[in-house]
Amino acid sequence: MITSPENAKLKLVRKLGSRRWRDKLGLFVAEGEDLVDAARAAGWEPVEVLVAGENVAPELLAQVSTLAHPPRVIGVFRTSEGTTGAAVADAAPADGLALWRVADPGNVGTLARAVDAFGGTLRLSDGCADPFGPKALRASMGSIFRVPLLEFELPPGSVALLAHGATPLHGLDLEVGSNFVLGSEREGLPPEIVERCDAVATIPLPGRAESLNVAMAGTVALYEASRRRAIQTVSSPPVKARRSNHP
Amino acid sequence: MITSPENAKLKLVRKLGSRRWRDKLGLFVAEGEDLVDAARAAGWEPVEVLVAGENVAPELLAQVSTLAHPPRVIGVFRTSEGTTGAAVADAAPADGLALWRVADPGNVGTLARAVDAFGGTLRLSDGCADPFGPKALRASMGSIFRVPLLEFELPPGSVALLAHGATPLHGLDLEVGSNFVLGSEREGLPPEIVERCDAVATIPLPGRAESLNVAMAGTVALYEASRRRAIQTVSSPPVKARRSNHP
Repeated sequence: MITSPENAKLKLVRKLGSRRWRDKLGLFVAEGEDLVDAARAAGWEPVEVLVAGENVAPELLAQVSTLAHPPRVIGVFRTSEGTTGAAVADAAPADGLALWRVADPGNVGTLARAVDAFGGTLRLSDGCADPFGPKALRASMGSIFRVPLLEFELPPGSVALLAHGATPLHGLDLEVGSNFVLGSEREGLPPEIVERCDAVATIPLPGRAESLNVAMAGTVALYEASRRRAIQTVSSPPVKARRSNHP
Repeated sequence: MITSPENAKLKLVRKLGSRRWRDKLGLFVAEGEDLVDAARAAGWEPVEVLVAGENVAPELLAQVSTLAHPPRVIGVFRTSEGTTGAAVADAAPADGLALWRVADPGNVGTLARAVDAFGGTLRLSDGCADPFGPKALRASMGSIFRVPLLEFELPPGSVALLAHGATPLHGLDLEVGSNFVLGSEREGLPPEIVERCDAVATIPLPGRAESLNVAMAGTVALYEASRRRAIQTVSSPPVKARRSNHP
């Protein structure tokens, strides 16, 4: 039972509150049973698990927690386990999201949840919020452990989502694939990124608000691609569909 | 120039940090030029405006602010101005969102922004986060001032959004209207509310995440209704469309 705040494991958890240390050590902290369970269910092996009242004094665990209601369990994991997603992504079509300098951890986490819900991969550029930071992890509701996390790239089928002026999303030809590319909260996408995409699209907003936030826009785009696939599946001849499922 | 922290206006701003006082006095605080400008542009007249360096010492304004970067301007407004939206709503079809005990202010604010972007009204039940609280206001990006805010009700055309098991949203008949009803973050919608709706729908999630958060689900529903209307408009005979625009 850990009873000293100077314990090395507690010191490690405190350090991992900063992105600099997470990047340096390749480790991060998942707080709470829901997140730790989600990680394990997705095959992530914790480096350390601290359980209040079992191997650490509850008040000490509470002190190193970032949560208002301290968790019963804290797990330390390797960020490198996230790259196992790369194998999945190689096999999958270029569907999902590529985020360019999306700085808010809540947005990165929410979009990980959206990708996990609709299917696909999540690509993050430099300058994005750390997906393994506490806020992003919480907003992802554990999806960070299930989504293939990749480097920012613009594979064939990349669609730049712009706030204004491009083809309406619902009128866009999504046959090539749908890797939706979203820009930063303040600046959007720079022209050099937009130019490298195969298509540009806008979510038409008939109301008065100028824009959606990036998490809402990305979720709507994933929904639209998913809806189209669902319609295609339904309208394909059933025999053909059966054949391609059981070759 | 206000130079004492005991000044009555500063005391009022501090009080309005709590919902109890906002409800009691029927007043709330908008922090920052963007929000105060959005309010004025939407026709809301401030009861008080405090401007750092003009009528209040900057350090005192910073002290009463809830923001990490203190604003230059703080405005105090009457919540009752929001009810002017009711007139707009009476004339509009039953489109928009009805939120049942959505407790997170970020979700309420984000959904106000979505309603403002796609058009419609926002209905809030008891137990919803205060739309005039600081976090909801910020998440709304000023949309709270433009969206017709109404009491929770289930007008004809109400569609309960469930996380699982109902008609896919994209297959739903939205002809009656589309007042999407969303439940609380933890519990969803209680059966007695679902029963009073005209239809139930689910956003199909082919991936692994169990659900979207309520703000994302509401935004997707508004997008779907808006997309259908856009398609209908395009496919109507142009002459007829022109006639109804210029009677």
